[in-house]
Parts: sequence; structure tokens; C-alpha cells
Amino acid sequence: MKKPEVGLTHLRVTLSDTFYVGPGRADLLDGIDKTGSIAEAAKGMGMSYKRAWSLVQALNDGFGAPLVETQRGGSGQGANLTTDGRSVLEAYRRMQQATRDAIAPEVKALTRDMSRRK
Amino acid sequence: MKKPEVGLTHLRVTLSDTFYVGPGRADLLDGIDKTGSIAEAAKGMGMSYKRAWSLVQALNDGFGAPLVETQRGGSGQGANLTTDGRSVLEAYRRMQQATRDAIAPEVKALTRDMSRRK
Repeated sequence: MKKPEVGLTHLRVTLSDTFYVGPGRADLLDGIDKTGSIAEAAKGMGMSYKRAWSLVQALNDGFGAPLVETQRGGSGQGANLTTDGRSVLEAYRRMQQATRDAIAPEVKALTRDMSRRK
Repeated sequence: MKKPEVGLTHLRVTLSDTFYVGPGRADLLDGIDKTGSIAEAAKGMGMSYKRAWSLVQALNDGFGAPLVETQRGGSGQGANLTTDGRSVLEAYRRMQQATRDAIAPEVKALTRDMSRRK
């Protein structure tokens, strides 16, 4: 059986009344960065293209500057992160890691308590 | 206009394949602790009694020992946190604070970047 993921499983950071980043948004930015395509990124997450597209709109509008830019050309449509997009994604990954480090002692103590009870 | 909450808005910590704590569960434990009643705690959160009760069951079953215990008596039904319940709630609040502290520099840098763009 797969060992369950223990520790941080959801971190949402709100930056304004119109903008937040959570694990889904970060994974979408990551997927766009890796595949160069909103459709491919969505597919990799089991998300509909429509949903991914509306998340990209929410990210771009909410931040106040594009995090993702799209191109249309002869060979179809491509997408990539802007400098702002990359900077937001990297900051989120650093915050996830900082959180994992910060909560590690409590997680360890709690899982030890629980295993004593089972 | 109300200033939006900026910074950490959702922290979920998973401790086993059957147990996690997030802001809603922590607030429910807090409410039960303060009011001595699942019904009152639910009301304070705008949550149905049914939903609160099923969350209490999920917390108790998932942890493997009761976090909330209920009493029935002549004057109705009361509920309170067990030692384990208090210990989980306090650990969660410490993890929230540790996370806020850990992400503060990134939050500050990101909000400064955003305010420059508006």
C-alpha cells in the first residue's frame, strides 16, 4: 500500500483581495512551464482546459500583471511563464519548503503520539 | 472597505492516511472548547450541526482516540476537548504561527512587487 503523504498537504498564501497562490495554482504554473502549453498542463493534472484557462485568467488579472503569456501561431498555441510568473512560482515553492521545515518538529511529535495510540 | 487578510490563509497538515487538521477543523475544536457544545460551535461558524457532528466523528476516528467527548444529561448535551484534543489544537496553532513567521519575508517581497505594478 502507498505510504500516505504526511506533513504539509495544503498551503494557501493570500497576497491581496484579488490574488492568492495555493498548490493547484502553483502546479498549473509548473505544468505550463514544463510543457509550454495550457492544454498539456491541464491534461497532466486531470483538469479541464476550460478550468485551467480560467485559472490562468484569475492569476493574471489578480496579480495585476501577466504571469502566463500565450502565443498563437501556425503550429498551434503555446504558453509560457513571464518573469513575474516564474518569480511567483519560485516564491511559492520556497514558502512550501520553509513551512515544511517550520512544522517538522510538531509533525514528528504528533505522528509519534498517534502511533502510540494505534 | 475591509482590508483583506494577507499571508497564510489555509494550512492543512496530514498526519496519517485517516487524519489531517486544517483551519476548519481547528476552528471547530476551538469553538467546542469555548462553548462546551458542538451545536453552539457549529452555529458560530455558520455550519450545520450535522456537518459539525460528522467532522467530530472524522476527527475522533481518524486520530484513533477521541479528541472531543460528549455528555448527555438532564440539561441537554455538552461536549469538550479531551487532553488529546487540546494537544492537537495547540499543536496546530503553533504550526500556523510557525508558518506565518517562516513565510513572512516572501509575503513581504511579493506584496511589494505587486503594489509596484498596480
